[in-house]
Amino acid sequence: MAEQVRVIVCGFGRVGREFARLVHEKSGLLRAAYGLEPSIVGVGELNGSLHSPDGIDVVETADAFEREGGFTSHPNLVADWQGLDLVRSASADTLIETTPTDIRTGEPALSHIREALGRGIHVVSANKGPFIRAYRELTALAREKNLNLKISAAAAAALPTIDVAETCLAGAEILKVEGVLNGTTNFILSRMRTNGQSYEEALAEAQALGIAETDPTLDVEGFDTANKLALIANVCMGADLTPDDLERTGIAGISLGEVQGASAEGKIMRLVGVAKRDESGRVSARVAPELLPPDHPLAGVEGAEKGITYTSDTMDRVTVVGGKSDPRGAAAALLKDLINIYRHSSS
Amino acid sequence: MAEQVRVIVCGFGRVGREFARLVHEKSGLLRAAYGLEPSIVGVGELNGSLHSPDGIDVVETADAFEREGGFTSHPNLVADWQGLDLVRSASADTLIETTPTDIRTGEPALSHIREALGRGIHVVSANKGPFIRAYRELTALAREKNLNLKISAAAAAALPTIDVAETCLAGAEILKVEGVLNGTTNFILSRMRTNGQSYEEALAEAQALGIAETDPTLDVEGFDTANKLALIANVCMGADLTPDDLERTGIAGISLGEVQGASAEGKIMRLVGVAKRDESGRVSARVAPELLPPDHPLAGVEGAEKGITYTSDTMDRVTVVGGKSDPRGAAAALLKDLINIYRHSSS
Repeated sequence: MAEQVRVIVCGFGRVGREFARLVHEKSGLLRAAYGLEPSIVGVGELNGSLHSPDGIDVVETADAFEREGGFTSHPNLVADWQGLDLVRSASADTLIETTPTDIRTGEPALSHIREALGRGIHVVSANKGPFIRAYRELTALAREKNLNLKISAAAAAALPTIDVAETCLAGAEILKVEGVLNGTTNFILSRMRTNGQSYEEALAEAQALGIAETDPTLDVEGFDTANKLALIANVCMGADLTPDDLERTGIAGISLGEVQGASAEGKIMRLVGVAKRDESGRVSARVAPELLPPDHPLAGVEGAEKGITYTSDTMDRVTVVGGKSDPRGAAAALLKDLINIYRHSSS
Repeated sequence: MAEQVRVIVCGFGRVGREFARLVHEKSGLLRAAYGLEPSIVGVGELNGSLHSPDGIDVVETADAFEREGGFTSHPNLVADWQGLDLVRSASADTLIETTPTDIRTGEPALSHIREALGRGIHVVSANKGPFIRAYRELTALAREKNLNLKISAAAAAALPTIDVAETCLAGAEILKVEGVLNGTTNFILSRMRTNGQSYEEALAEAQALGIAETDPTLDVEGFDTANKLALIANVCMGADLTPDDLERTGIAGISLGEVQGASAEGKIMRLVGVAKRDESGRVSARVAPELLPPDHPLAGVEGAEKGITYTSDTMDRVTVVGGKSDPRGAAAALLKDLINIYRHSSS
């Protein structure tokens, strides 16, 4: 007998829609391999939400949303509900949170997640904001309610980071985390090194390819790396960092001479986030362009790829590299977290 | 309240002793972070076993075993019990299996594991043999009894392999596994390439460093890689392979010219195990020296290190590299599996 799981999706942007499609596409595998039958009973959006206790035809819904730019004529539309109303009212088991993040306030995701946990609903989030602002509060609330709060997609989409530390390195003490966590900056530095492009040229190419945003500040100033690193250090090292606690140096305007000078010395420049536990047990973290020797496990993380290295007391150095970084990769990370919530260890 | 877990260790070689010491060393962390209080209530060895329902002082026992070459004067000694008698008689929750493997018969580990599962005892194994011989039987038995059977340490010690696929890539379909799974052969090929040593010189150095065995056949003929690959493909791709099903080419006697010729073309020769699912769904696998292009994620796995690359439908390519490969690393992998058995998903 498969376990029925009622899912609410807040935010129906590219990641939310890709998640909905993936749940449909993988329904056979979910039943056969994991004994799960997820049904999407609600979709929360700014201009009205969908709600149907019997489940929503999500593939047709996603197609229509793209065609019409919204839920204009959907049979399950509740026009005056936003995401929070849906989370307050629907009977559900898990919230999938994919709304756009306001990194300063964490909203509206923070309210969605608080409400969900308060109502006994597990949370899987692609959103960093709430955890950057209220990590301790939310994890304490989840623990108190004996609920899961999973954030793989927020930490680095399909590159496994937090679950590697939690599961694959269970029992080991993480002493250091080093991460190439931002694909845009790694693409720019890679292009400068291999093609001799200037920073501006490489950035323009990244923008043309859809890798960089029109306003690249979040990426190139190191904010995105700092956000991800703070999340990972908090979960995997028991730290209590906000991104503001990190020393942060970005790569904006870096000169070709600096990048190629590193190459001439046999080093490879990458934007690396490093969190380290010192002897007193305190975790400190920084983001900066680093000159990696060629035998460093992150030296080979090329182009828009990402990677993370954990150094631990008993397992030494373990590095994970890769993972699809588009909306489908983020959706796959959400689905993985959903599966792992309902998975029992003795199976 | 911490959960009491009664553990039997079969095999008190370097890995078994290191596991016992690690459980002691990590007892505070196990209680605080995982709510676990493991107590080693039995240690099985060929020339007599230890048994004490109240727990054995494992650190003193390990020290004495090394001093005296056995359990000669231990207060908990049952002189006429071998491992199987212990598994048959002791009240226990989990068996840690670390006896030397006979790869052809899987014994004595196979009997220990059958007996344990039959009695309702979870199994964590550093032993490949039983799973190469009786993978389907043992997993079916574990499933029937609702027990865990975990083999991280058997697959690649502290390099996470199976748990990455099972947990971090949950929901993704693994289409291909590529692994540099044997440290000895990778050391030899690395030395030949970087130092211009002959095969014989590099092998002798590996033997002098304790990386290679006096009889290196298992490693250099690719048997060890084939064994690990078959295990990983069976668990992660639902295959049903024995190592005999694999095409296997080792590196014994490979010429310096071949290795350096690859280098001259910008390629790096490594012994790689590859398991692939074809369009009909069938998984085939082979082990052979491969010429990796420099941008292949396993190209940078240097010296005695190991690595594995999973290619999946939704997460693309994810590579894991590193992990301590000595007895402490294997013990850490055993401990991780033990923790993950008793970990509840909603915590």
